[in-house]
This record gives sequence, structure tokens and C-alpha cells, in this order.
Amino acid sequence: METCRQRVDAALARWLPATSATSAALQQAMRYAVLDGGKRVRPFLVYAAGEAAGGRIGTLDGPACAVELIHAYSLVHDDLPAMDNDALRRGKPTCHVAFGEATALLAGDALQTLAFEILARDPGLTVSPEIRIALIARLATAAGMAGMAGGQAIDLEAVGREIGLAELERMHRLKTGALIRAAVALGGLAGGADDAALEALDRYAAAIGLAFQIQDDVLDVESDTATLGKTQGADMALNKPTYPALLGLEPARERAREQCALAIGALEEFDARADQLRALARYVIERVH
Amino acid sequence: METCRQRVDAALARWLPATSATSAALQQAMRYAVLDGGKRVRPFLVYAAGEAAGGRIGTLDGPACAVELIHAYSLVHDDLPAMDNDALRRGKPTCHVAFGEATALLAGDALQTLAFEILARDPGLTVSPEIRIALIARLATAAGMAGMAGGQAIDLEAVGREIGLAELERMHRLKTGALIRAAVALGGLAGGADDAALEALDRYAAAIGLAFQIQDDVLDVESDTATLGKTQGADMALNKPTYPALLGLEPARERAREQCALAIGALEEFDARADQLRALARYVIERVH
Repeated sequence: METCRQRVDAALARWLPATSATSAALQQAMRYAVLDGGKRVRPFLVYAAGEAAGGRIGTLDGPACAVELIHAYSLVHDDLPAMDNDALRRGKPTCHVAFGEATALLAGDALQTLAFEILARDPGLTVSPEIRIALIARLATAAGMAGMAGGQAIDLEAVGREIGLAELERMHRLKTGALIRAAVALGGLAGGADDAALEALDRYAAAIGLAFQIQDDVLDVESDTATLGKTQGADMALNKPTYPALLGLEPARERAREQCALAIGALEEFDARADQLRALARYVIERVH
Repeated sequence: METCRQRVDAALARWLPATSATSAALQQAMRYAVLDGGKRVRPFLVYAAGEAAGGRIGTLDGPACAVELIHAYSLVHDDLPAMDNDALRRGKPTCHVAFGEATALLAGDALQTLAFEILARDPGLTVSPEIRIALIARLATAAGMAGMAGGQAIDLEAVGREIGLAELERMHRLKTGALIRAAVALGGLAGGADDAALEALDRYAAAIGLAFQIQDDVLDVESDTATLGKTQGADMALNKPTYPALLGLEPARERAREQCALAIGALEEFDARADQLRALARYVIERVH
């Protein structure tokens, strides 16, 4: 995971150079929001799925960057006063606290654009034009109104309102699940997976995405502020629906473990090259922040 | 122009259906921001450049929608309290006044995503995969940090500060010029233009873009609120730099006319199929809002 992190961080830094061609504040805000020591779970999924499909690592840098940039832009916009109004992210001031709201808004916008620019232009992405288009289409659908942005809108509508488990899962399936599935799909597609392998990878990704979100809710209850790098209990304080609130803490933990087992089961046709994906499934339920 | 407007409005409405797959508020906000009776200058440029290059109109709908969606998203975000804090757009409440800031922010985000999704998925876009990728790359570069978003950031930095003509033109070349040039380039590329034709079209577009912006500044001084549909003198009230402020009103008008002549001159190798582009150049300096 550390190897992937270093690899995608280097690739992201190359796509975000210090240049005089645009606003210095915008560039600084974009670099600040992206080159921030994040865990790079989604790039890891791109690399691991690509390797499971038998792909070369060099062709996976572009898709890994693109998925991470969509994630990074969503965090910048999510933290804005109009949304969650968060002042801290990974223990540092959020982008709008550091650069002002207007620049943070534009930085988020330009990070999203850069994701698609990379998929369209990256010379290291040595796939056919048809696959390159499929990567762009897949990421756009995952990020947009029927994916991540749609899930965030459903989340907004749910604040302060009683919702059930089915609605909570629908919200997370879009808000965080869609991009996690896209990360795995982009890795698989760029790595040369056939339709059967892509289908198995997608079952893995759907289960992992759900486990990841349940565990996020669990950690929000359990962890203290120092370990997590954000305000403890923030979601419950905002009266946002969570798995522990709906199921209880221990049953929520159990549900996360079930999903991880499902994820590993989806990979039974894959050889040892899928071991990174298997390890990630175990990591999701063992992580502390 | 009215024919193009109806055509792109119908295509945009097809890409923004009422569906239960996502948040109702998000969809309504997206439709409100896009299907708003705009003039569709950028889609017109896509169609007109495509026709000048000898392309079929059916293949131009997707690029026309994509460019307009980038424009629409930028207006939604530009109107937010963190940016220009505008309450009126085309005589109607702005998106965040009608739907709240959080939903407007997400609607802008999802409109940008949809632009790239359309270029990647539109079955009516009957170009080679290589050209489809070139369309996506061109639009992304025009919209991102070295294009529209970069220009908006430079604009932010210029508010309340003395800037000269060179800096003002640099800001507009990115903020509005980049997307206008992309509209013409996408039309030309999708229409099958060769490199020489694309180069001539780009000279046309650069001149038109500058003329359009100068005329916008002139109109902001001249027009009353009712005709313009936004608050008269808004830019000068915010102490934003404008061409009339730097050059004087009549010299600014003269400069717009010069650019329109340059634009028409760039088209000398084109036949009568470029007449729509020529007519647009004349329209830019004759329009009243």
C-alpha cells in the first residue's frame, strides 16, 4: 500500500506542476488539497485490480490519479461552509480555511476537470482508444448525478430526518460506493480484464465499498479526535444517519466483517495476483483511522 | 440561431431526464440551471463551426451539449455567495437562491461531470474513437486550471486591484475565451476539419471571444437592468476591471468591432457554409443583451 501511495503521489505531483500559466493561488490550493498525505485507498484499488487482471503498473498511473482527483475534489467541496463546514481534514486546515471559499470552490472544480483531462491525455495509458473512452465513461457515470454527486444530494436530504437501513445503503452505494467500484473497474479495464473478470471485480468492489462505509461510521463513534484527524462523533452530532445508530455498534461491526468475506469470496477465480485486493478487504475492517 | 437553440435544448433535456435513480432536488436544480432559456451562443458556435467544416448536424449535438454544460456549471458556481453572490440570472432567481447553496454546488459539480459523460457516451457522435478522445481532451483543457477555472481565479485576484490591459486580456482569454475557442474547435473536430481549417477556426474563435467579452463589459455599462436580466453596472460596482473603465466606452466599442473584422477575415478560405460563423461575428457587436 505504501508503494502505491508513493507511486500515485509522484504521478499526481507531475500533473500538478508549479506553472506560471494560471493563477498561483489556484495551483497552490489544488496541490494542497491533493498532495496531502492521504491514504490513497482508491488508487490502491486501481493498481490492485489492474494487477489482478494481469495489467502493467505503468498503464495504471493515469486511472489511479483520475479516481483520486475525483475523490479529492469531492472532499474540498464537501468541507465548504455550504456543505459540512469542516475546518479540519487529516489534521490540517481544510482547503477553504487555508485559501478562502472562492479559491477552494474553483480548486475543486479544476480537480474534477483534471481527472478527465488525464484520462484523455495520459501518454502512459497504453490502452486502445475504445478502452480509454470506456474509462472516461465509467468514471463520469460514477462521479455524476447517478453516482457520487447524487449520493451527496441524497445525504443532504437525509440530514435531520429519520431514514431506514435501505435508504442509508442506497445513499452510500452512490456517495462512496460508486467511486470505489469505479476505481476497481478502471483498474480492471486498463489491466485487460474480460467481462467475467470485470463482473467478479465489481462484486468485490460493491462489498468492499459497503464495508468501508460501515467501518467509517463505526470509527466515527469509537475513535478519538487525535487518531482520526477530524472531530470525533461529527456525523452523529449533525444528526446524520449512521450504521451504528441504526443497527447498534457490534452488529454494525459484524456487518462490515460479512461484507469483507463476500468481497474475498468474489475473487475465488483469481490467482495470487489478486492477493493485494484480498489484503485490502482485511485491512478495511482492521484499520483504526 | 433559434434553430440551434431549439436543437440543443431538446438534446440537453434528453440528457437530463426526470428519473428516480438519484436525488429529486439535484435533478431539479440541474434542469433549472440548464433549461433556462439561455441564448446558447456556445452551442451555436459548435454547430456553425461543424457546418463550416462540412460535418453532419447530428454528430454535433453531443459536443454542443457538453460545451453548454461546462458554461452552465460555471455560472451556477460563479453566482454562489462565495463568488459573485448574484441573486438574479436571466431575470430569474439564481440556482442557489432557488435550491439552496449545497444543492447548487452539487448541481454545478454534476453538470460538469455530465459534459464529459456525454462526450464519452453519446451514440449520435459518429466520429472515430481518436477524435472522440481529442474532443474530451480539448474540452478538459479549456475548462480546467489552464483555462476557464484558471481565468476565474485570476479574476478573483484582480478584484479591488489596479490591473492593466494586458492582464485584463489574459484573464478573459482564459475565463471566457478558452471555452469559446473550445466550442469552435469541438465543432471543427467533430465536423472533420483538417489542421489548416482548425487553425483558421481557432483564429476566428480567439477574436470572437475577445469581442464578446468587450461587448459584455460595454453592455454592463449601457444597459438597464430590465433588458439585461441582471443588476446593471454590477461589475463596476464590484470594482472589477472592465474594458470601458480602462479604454473609455467608445474606444472599447471600436476594439470590439476590430476583433469582429479579424474574425471574419480568418474565414476567407471557407465557403458559404461558414456564413453562420460570419453572421455570429456581426451579431456579437449588434446584440443588446
